[in-house]
Amino acid sequence: MKDLYPSRIKGMPSILERKDPIIHNSNKGDGPLNAQELDFYEDNGYLFMPNFFSEEEVTILQQELRRNMQDNKDSDEKYVVRESGGDEIRSVFDVHNNDEFFHNLSSHERLVHIAQQLLGSQVYINQSRINFKPGFKGKDFYWHSDFETWHMEDGMPNMRAVSCSIILTDNYSYNGPLLLIPGSHRYYVQCVGETPENHFEQSLKMQNIGVPDHDSINWLLQKGGRIDSATGPAGSVLFFESNTMHGSNSNVSPMPRSNVFFVFNSVENKLVEPFANITPRPEFIANRTNIQPIEPKSWDITKKKVTLHP
Amino acid sequence: MKDLYPSRIKGMPSILERKDPIIHNSNKGDGPLNAQELDFYEDNGYLFMPNFFSEEEVTILQQELRRNMQDNKDSDEKYVVRESGGDEIRSVFDVHNNDEFFHNLSSHERLVHIAQQLLGSQVYINQSRINFKPGFKGKDFYWHSDFETWHMEDGMPNMRAVSCSIILTDNYSYNGPLLLIPGSHRYYVQCVGETPENHFEQSLKMQNIGVPDHDSINWLLQKGGRIDSATGPAGSVLFFESNTMHGSNSNVSPMPRSNVFFVFNSVENKLVEPFANITPRPEFIANRTNIQPIEPKSWDITKKKVTLHP
Repeated sequence: MKDLYPSRIKGMPSILERKDPIIHNSNKGDGPLNAQELDFYEDNGYLFMPNFFSEEEVTILQQELRRNMQDNKDSDEKYVVRESGGDEIRSVFDVHNNDEFFHNLSSHERLVHIAQQLLGSQVYINQSRINFKPGFKGKDFYWHSDFETWHMEDGMPNMRAVSCSIILTDNYSYNGPLLLIPGSHRYYVQCVGETPENHFEQSLKMQNIGVPDHDSINWLLQKGGRIDSATGPAGSVLFFESNTMHGSNSNVSPMPRSNVFFVFNSVENKLVEPFANITPRPEFIANRTNIQPIEPKSWDITKKKVTLHP
Repeated sequence: MKDLYPSRIKGMPSILERKDPIIHNSNKGDGPLNAQELDFYEDNGYLFMPNFFSEEEVTILQQELRRNMQDNKDSDEKYVVRESGGDEIRSVFDVHNNDEFFHNLSSHERLVHIAQQLLGSQVYINQSRINFKPGFKGKDFYWHSDFETWHMEDGMPNMRAVSCSIILTDNYSYNGPLLLIPGSHRYYVQCVGETPENHFEQSLKMQNIGVPDHDSINWLLQKGGRIDSATGPAGSVLFFESNTMHGSNSNVSPMPRSNVFFVFNSVENKLVEPFANITPRPEFIANRTNIQPIEPKSWDITKKKVTLHP
């Protein structure tokens, strides 16, 4: 398969134009997002929806997040990622596979229909996780495009995926919210350097390969004109395009941050061999086997009761 | 001299009530700040004044900051502090002593009259520096009260000093602005642990002694109800009380931050022996000899022309 987005080649970095549509639906109106929301997503590469989930739903989601963390307290599964130099859980991956509640959440029609509308096809979960960023000592995360990693290390061919972050703690400007460069999804920043084998074991904690250079970030910022912060109350949901440049500052504030993170990928954009010529990353980071399109389900989160669509 | 604010004693931390006034002037109206500004300072422990300096003045101030950095590029003076693991200058201390322009700036009547109004006496500069926090990799700084350090390591007896930060780059919420806990200046957080000799050589880069515990920060936040960010355009000035709890997050954004920092101390609050029973820190960090009250000067920054008051 032709590599539309080469990266991690030696020498100087360069910036390529995006070769895929941003909204893949030929009938854009076919879904829950209205024209204004679609335009915002297309222009900026993300859409922030405050209070997407109600207070009652947030209470349940928070309980389930804590319950999952508790379930995994003593786990030595690879999908449980702990803080560097500590025992505290930072993320639990693959929750759409290994946890019934989050499996059901990942197929909730309110989320899935949006992903389908943006990607113009049936979708599946390529990656899922719950994240816990503690107060006082949350680390920063340098600028990156998720797509660059998914393309090079997982073999995602095209920019036809969308990340969905369900925010479960209030995000203030000062507790390390996600920062995004609007418009950056239209450009692909080639990174310098080759990818070592098993890079993911490091990169889940600290990114050092697939890192955009300062000039490219400055260039994107020049183009986009600003940095946006995903701030808002618990229950807000952020959809952001696979290639949108994002990062976050540290969090010295006492307020922790937690969220649920689903990557919806188009069933027409399934993973192939990694473009970096390495062994594919494990299934818990990038699902490549047993891919089934999600059947969207209507269910009441506060009752944890799933009813299949009629 | 009786130690009103003991700290760094072994065992459990505790929180003491402030024993000094916040505004020391018996005739509060005697100065440039109006009643509303004074009330805000008294309640919150800081006062942020947007666009205190004009654009033309900011241009000169920025030029002079860069000129000073350039002058000190190859300096091996102790007052030039570089990034850990790098050669870049992070701060130049004692600029009111070693640089004519910043000496004059430190005696500018627009600043000094405010300090005098708050401290109710003549004032002098206890510490000065210019700071440069680079984009992309600006480090975070954990919560601290400057007074705790000045008291324990420098022997400042009372809370009768005010810091003045002249902001020379636009401060956004996402490029590591100063964060403050409103109302925290009313409480003194005792820290745990003893102070080693020459602690300052480390603490200028990374604070590890004199660090408040998490519970105390949570308690202050509970009391204050919020965290405020000192965001605003270049040319804004922040006055904050010596004991106001503050910190900052890292800065992954491309936007650097620089400022000029003066600590005005009351001439009635001169340094004595450090309360931590250590050798006093060097003069470039804490002036203790040749203390002269500042004679406020009226001068035009854009003309760099100093005229003594008639």
